[in-house]
Amino acid sequence: MDGGGERNLEVPRTIRWSDGKVILLDQRKLPLKEVYITCHDPRQIAKRIRNMTVRGAPAIGVAGAMGIALAALRSRASDYEDLMDDLRRASKILKATRPTAINLSWAIDRMLMKAKAFRGDVEVLRRLLIQEAQRMAEEDIEANKALSDLGEELLEDGDSILTYCNAGALATIGWGTALGIVRSAVRRGKRIHVYACETRPLLQGSRLTTYELSLEGIPVTLITDNAAAYCMNRGLVKKVIVGADRIAANGDVANKIGTYALAILARHHGIPFYVAAPTSTIDPSKPSGASIPIEMRDPNEVKSIGGRRLAPETVEAMNPAFDVTPSELVTAIITEKGILWPPFQESIRKLLKHQL
Amino acid sequence: MDGGGERNLEVPRTIRWSDGKVILLDQRKLPLKEVYITCHDPRQIAKRIRNMTVRGAPAIGVAGAMGIALAALRSRASDYEDLMDDLRRASKILKATRPTAINLSWAIDRMLMKAKAFRGDVEVLRRLLIQEAQRMAEEDIEANKALSDLGEELLEDGDSILTYCNAGALATIGWGTALGIVRSAVRRGKRIHVYACETRPLLQGSRLTTYELSLEGIPVTLITDNAAAYCMNRGLVKKVIVGADRIAANGDVANKIGTYALAILARHHGIPFYVAAPTSTIDPSKPSGASIPIEMRDPNEVKSIGGRRLAPETVEAMNPAFDVTPSELVTAIITEKGILWPPFQESIRKLLKHQL
Repeated sequence: MDGGGERNLEVPRTIRWSDGKVILLDQRKLPLKEVYITCHDPRQIAKRIRNMTVRGAPAIGVAGAMGIALAALRSRASDYEDLMDDLRRASKILKATRPTAINLSWAIDRMLMKAKAFRGDVEVLRRLLIQEAQRMAEEDIEANKALSDLGEELLEDGDSILTYCNAGALATIGWGTALGIVRSAVRRGKRIHVYACETRPLLQGSRLTTYELSLEGIPVTLITDNAAAYCMNRGLVKKVIVGADRIAANGDVANKIGTYALAILARHHGIPFYVAAPTSTIDPSKPSGASIPIEMRDPNEVKSIGGRRLAPETVEAMNPAFDVTPSELVTAIITEKGILWPPFQESIRKLLKHQL
Repeated sequence: MDGGGERNLEVPRTIRWSDGKVILLDQRKLPLKEVYITCHDPRQIAKRIRNMTVRGAPAIGVAGAMGIALAALRSRASDYEDLMDDLRRASKILKATRPTAINLSWAIDRMLMKAKAFRGDVEVLRRLLIQEAQRMAEEDIEANKALSDLGEELLEDGDSILTYCNAGALATIGWGTALGIVRSAVRRGKRIHVYACETRPLLQGSRLTTYELSLEGIPVTLITDNAAAYCMNRGLVKKVIVGADRIAANGDVANKIGTYALAILARHHGIPFYVAAPTSTIDPSKPSGASIPIEMRDPNEVKSIGGRRLAPETVEAMNPAFDVTPSELVTAIITEKGILWPPFQESIRKLLKHQL
């Protein structure tokens, strides 16, 4: 049943807990080099989230959880309250790294809640938190596979899919969201062609998505972001599937800068626009996308590539890392608990109620 | 009357005829280095058009004309028919370089017509053709200034303009089209802020537009192409102005890949979308954009920047250099002979009739 099985090479694992340390794949170096970074404490994790050694909303969620586990392990506290103080300190440092993806604070809060609910020996709590972080990593893969199985039913044999940034195994612990759906469709024997937008400024599309799909022999064509409309106009794109960094209660979707433009272009060409994300990406505390904080990153990311300057040194550049796609432009949101259809306010409310 | 006068530094001249040679500014090296290339014959000009040492529809038109002038000068023909044969050979080589911009064949055809209409001494014809090519360079600047004077009336004090690629002095012989309009507005005392899309893959926006505007002290903010919709949504963009490589009889506009997307985004946000181009960009032989040839360039332009590879070596990439914006998405076309409004079929027909 595994059509592409014999061609598969392993997509490297983004985050691993190993013997009291966290090993991160340095995604900034891909696809040219496969380099791993070892983190011993939450500050090192925070640095690696901020500088995008690890990126992708689900992946930074798990990285945050492992940061809390490292805090528990490294803390010298011998009583519960002191340990909790150390965890809260670590939580603050970790949450301050990147503001837009909700998975980060979701995962950290889950770790803290686990700790708060615990009463007993701090050594037991330490082990519990380490287990919890590892469990969250496994759950991430399971959620991705579940949403991919649901989402792949939306794809037809012969479809060509346009995707953006990297919402694949490299954005998660494994399997991926948008690319997970493609992966599941291919495993079930459907022929799928992917158009990958390069995704300036950090080129997650050209560096990571093409790399990840090529490893598995899934056909992929790289295009500049500005060529998406041309491809849609020529009938090359049947569906758009993207990931998400945060989904508001009304279904507005914060995702990598440029997603909003793709949604407008898809609507203009009558092409379905799907968002694939685990339910941990939904933030019911935000009524709409207007209240989702948008990270502004270093303008030098726009003015240069890999240290090579492209623009005059003194020129001003603006570098919003995300944008918000209003829910009106979204065809469906594919989660591990089910596919959400408009009106999203209602379908999201129902899903979350069911979850409690 | 010249508000920015004292700050002005000279934008370097793209093409100069000098003592029987053609001097081209190497635009691939800007803004880091100002390098000039000397061409002695039409083959050298053809190479420099193809590899984009010189680029921009009006500029490559004049480069083509100067290529014909070089052919006349270098030809050893001593009679008229032999000289015409050499000119036709050069014309074929020059026209084969880049298919989309019509200005190239327009300019070459004008040179050939001049030669065909001539009867007399071949030495006189040689001088005549050299003069004609230089006249076309001067006419380009005049046309740009004329269309800029008309176009600037569409801008208001305080406007912020989004532009794409480089339709400036560097895309022409001087002054520019889309940026010429901004330049004229600023000279008349209007405060204009420009958002420059970087324009992947060759980054004419980040390398050339920001450079050219910075030289004159016109405020400019560089953004990635995928951030245009974000800026429109935030109310940062009041008007879009782009250049053109070819305009069909019905007003469809072929221009740098990504222009079509901007036009859709502008329409979605209710923002006027203006095209600025000299009448030599209009090709009445093409009923619509569907019959305009779109140049497909080397996929490696997408996979790398300045020799630095960004994507896996074997991945497939698609690199259309242009797209077509249907006339329904165009608010007005600003030419040196007047501003064209919809229905463009009619306004273009009238303009060209008037021209004959």
